Amino acid sequence: MNYRFYNARILTMATTDIIKGELWVQDDKILYVGEGGDAAAICQSLSIESILWDREIDCGGNLLMPGFKNAHTHSAMTFLRSKADDMPLSRWLNEQVFPMEAKLDGEMIYHLTKLAVLEYLTSGITSIFDMYLTPETTAKACVEMGMRCVQVNTTSRQEDFEEALMQMEERYHTLNNYDPLHSYFIGFHAEYTCSRALLERVAEMAHKYHAPVYGHLSETKAEVEGCRERYGMTPLQLMDEMGMFDYGGGGYHCVWMSDEDMDILQKRNLSVITNPGSNTKLASGIAPISAYLKRGINVAIGTDGPASNNCLDMFREMFLVTGLAKLREEDAAAVDALEVLKMATVNGAKALYLPDTDVLAAGKQADLIMIDLYQPNMQPLNNIAKNLVYSGSKQNVKMTMIRGKILYENGRFTDAYDVEEIYRKANEIVRDLC
Amino acid sequence: MNYRFYNARILTMATTDIIKGELWVQDDKILYVGEGGDAAAICQSLSIESILWDREIDCGGNLLMPGFKNAHTHSAMTFLRSKADDMPLSRWLNEQVFPMEAKLDGEMIYHLTKLAVLEYLTSGITSIFDMYLTPETTAKACVEMGMRCVQVNTTSRQEDFEEALMQMEERYHTLNNYDPLHSYFIGFHAEYTCSRALLERVAEMAHKYHAPVYGHLSETKAEVEGCRERYGMTPLQLMDEMGMFDYGGGGYHCVWMSDEDMDILQKRNLSVITNPGSNTKLASGIAPISAYLKRGINVAIGTDGPASNNCLDMFREMFLVTGLAKLREEDAAAVDALEVLKMATVNGAKALYLPDTDVLAAGKQADLIMIDLYQPNMQPLNNIAKNLVYSGSKQNVKMTMIRGKILYENGRFTDAYDVEEIYRKANEIVRDLC
Repeated sequence: MNYRFYNARILTMATTDIIKGELWVQDDKILYVGEGGDAAAICQSLSIESILWDREIDCGGNLLMPGFKNAHTHSAMTFLRSKADDMPLSRWLNEQVFPMEAKLDGEMIYHLTKLAVLEYLTSGITSIFDMYLTPETTAKACVEMGMRCVQVNTTSRQEDFEEALMQMEERYHTLNNYDPLHSYFIGFHAEYTCSRALLERVAEMAHKYHAPVYGHLSETKAEVEGCRERYGMTPLQLMDEMGMFDYGGGGYHCVWMSDEDMDILQKRNLSVITNPGSNTKLASGIAPISAYLKRGINVAIGTDGPASNNCLDMFREMFLVTGLAKLREEDAAAVDALEVLKMATVNGAKALYLPDTDVLAAGKQADLIMIDLYQPNMQPLNNIAKNLVYSGSKQNVKMTMIRGKILYENGRFTDAYDVEEIYRKANEIVRDLC
Repeated sequence: MNYRFYNARILTMATTDIIKGELWVQDDKILYVGEGGDAAAICQSLSIESILWDREIDCGGNLLMPGFKNAHTHSAMTFLRSKADDMPLSRWLNEQVFPMEAKLDGEMIYHLTKLAVLEYLTSGITSIFDMYLTPETTAKACVEMGMRCVQVNTTSRQEDFEEALMQMEERYHTLNNYDPLHSYFIGFHAEYTCSRALLERVAEMAHKYHAPVYGHLSETKAEVEGCRERYGMTPLQLMDEMGMFDYGGGGYHCVWMSDEDMDILQKRNLSVITNPGSNTKLASGIAPISAYLKRGINVAIGTDGPASNNCLDMFREMFLVTGLAKLREEDAAAVDALEVLKMATVNGAKALYLPDTDVLAAGKQADLIMIDLYQPNMQPLNNIAKNLVYSGSKQNVKMTMIRGKILYENGRFTDAYDVEEIYRKANEIVRDLC
């Protein structure tokens, strides 16, 4: 399908200046972004004779921008949304999350992931970085729905892990060749859920494939203290000694990082995925975002799973990233909104190793969203980019396009989805599990 | 107009249990809330013969609940939304807010308030507690648009305040008899913008009319320190000594309150209006909400003005109230979501002295909203009440009704508004001011 978006404001994120003009999509790619004008002349500049439009969309002065990258989530945990709130982390994990998860199977995860995908689209999210129990069925759900999905293996075992490792290696091949919308990373759940021997084997695999690795890192103070007791080191120091991150990757959460940890993040060029909604709701703490930025560390943003957040809303996360940094630093100027917008788009693409989705430019993947500027929360048009971070909400997402396909538009999902059936299935699974 | 809402889930907030049934509205009031069934029998129980419906609305299983009370705002500050972000509080006030405000007139405030009212409706807000420069034109804008509005005088003068006091007294009479949608309180801006002599005169007026008083209280640490230097007391102690709160009222923000302050809040039965979005964005700190609740103090929620927030979104505020309390107390169980829902509705009505708008019950004002439960962020239907706080967003507001009038429904405002003209005016004013 070929789309011509005209009469648009465009925030390419290559810069944070906003241009007025047109954006052309051919099949899965952006063909042109610019001021528009004479179509024949633009075609000539693109070395094409002409182009036939399947649809020409008058943006009415609304904003086109790259879709958001949700750089850490556990999509299928939709079943636990608002099932267990207002309780301490340990009770939440041991009384709710673990017993319920033990009953899940791949098919349930397939259906529960679909529910999350619907919500991603309402929030302008065009890529997710998922970690969960049956990546095969998560991949199936995402690819069927047209959601771009990067997954990471959730390796977590204290012993008898040979089979799990073989499975991860097999997935590394099969799930990296599954679909253009999908890719797969070597990973570990967290230091506290893995034996040292297992972590060493994960690091070996990273070396074998020259592959980046991701996992939960220093989410809570207790996690770091536990690791120091076990090994006399922080989780990141322990991993780095094993060579876990010699080929890149990074960590989820990164709330409790020492200066030495930050040195490692810099040296290995790792990404920090911050999850402020989850860290707030579970009282885990406020990540040192200003310090990461000062060191030039790549910070991306994730919602974490719907069990701990509970919504999958990049607007809320963006406000929290800068808001919590302001509280932490006691400085209203901490972490500029434009920096946050970069985290949610460009830095996210870098963390997910999806360079073709970072900005709006000719040749890039057509992963883009339209923001409704004619809602009251976006008026007057004082500073659109900052307003996205401080005032934006799901209500402003007018369209979500992934790989050249419009999946959500004007509050309606593509007809390819059976939304009622997705809701019905999710509620049925919850009834069966409880 | 008479409305019959059927096939609804109903959260009356008299309890947090959710019933399935019907809600009837006759003119400005709720006539019936219950399980529905035989209409003739219900009419008989209400001692009426029958009722003619102007509209019967199938709620499709969606939720009816009381509208949110935005218990502190400066509506007309929409002109400064995203005009001055990411700067320290003192620069923000002195370089942006004060110079721009000096150029405002009543007509501008009228138009800028209208823009805010649109946003309130998208967020399910049915009452606001406003403080700004020309309350006459704020009242006009709100009443014309059908928004329920309580205002408080923003007295702030170091000297030559006789005229201002006379004006406040006159307003106390005229603006309390302006419209059933409107009421007016005696108030002061803040301790640091008023002389002691002026504050004493405000307290005198409270005694003359046996009237509650509201003002900004202990928003920043610097404010409290300044007051201690000036008077050897906190702002609340100073005011209480003057008898300011002998007839009730309360304070906005209340971030930096001592135990002695809390004793006064309890003794005088005052309301705390918390503004977590603004306190976060301006790095003012986290209010001690858990401590207030433990003492049984009435806590309500406000967005503050759009210059410091920047959006007027009760869903974001509700998440922040509990989330920030969890971070402050390092306890994921702090400030239960149901408590937050009560703050946003029942406690708000108490703070605004609008007892007829607190819950959904026969005889109460028809100030109510419909929440779309068939959006992905509300599924599965595990715990609707908690989900409102942790996952709800403006996108879920399907209808906003004030005093029996539907002002916003399915993403559209009532035809009585000229929305484009409101946007045009706001942008024009900003151009002229800058």
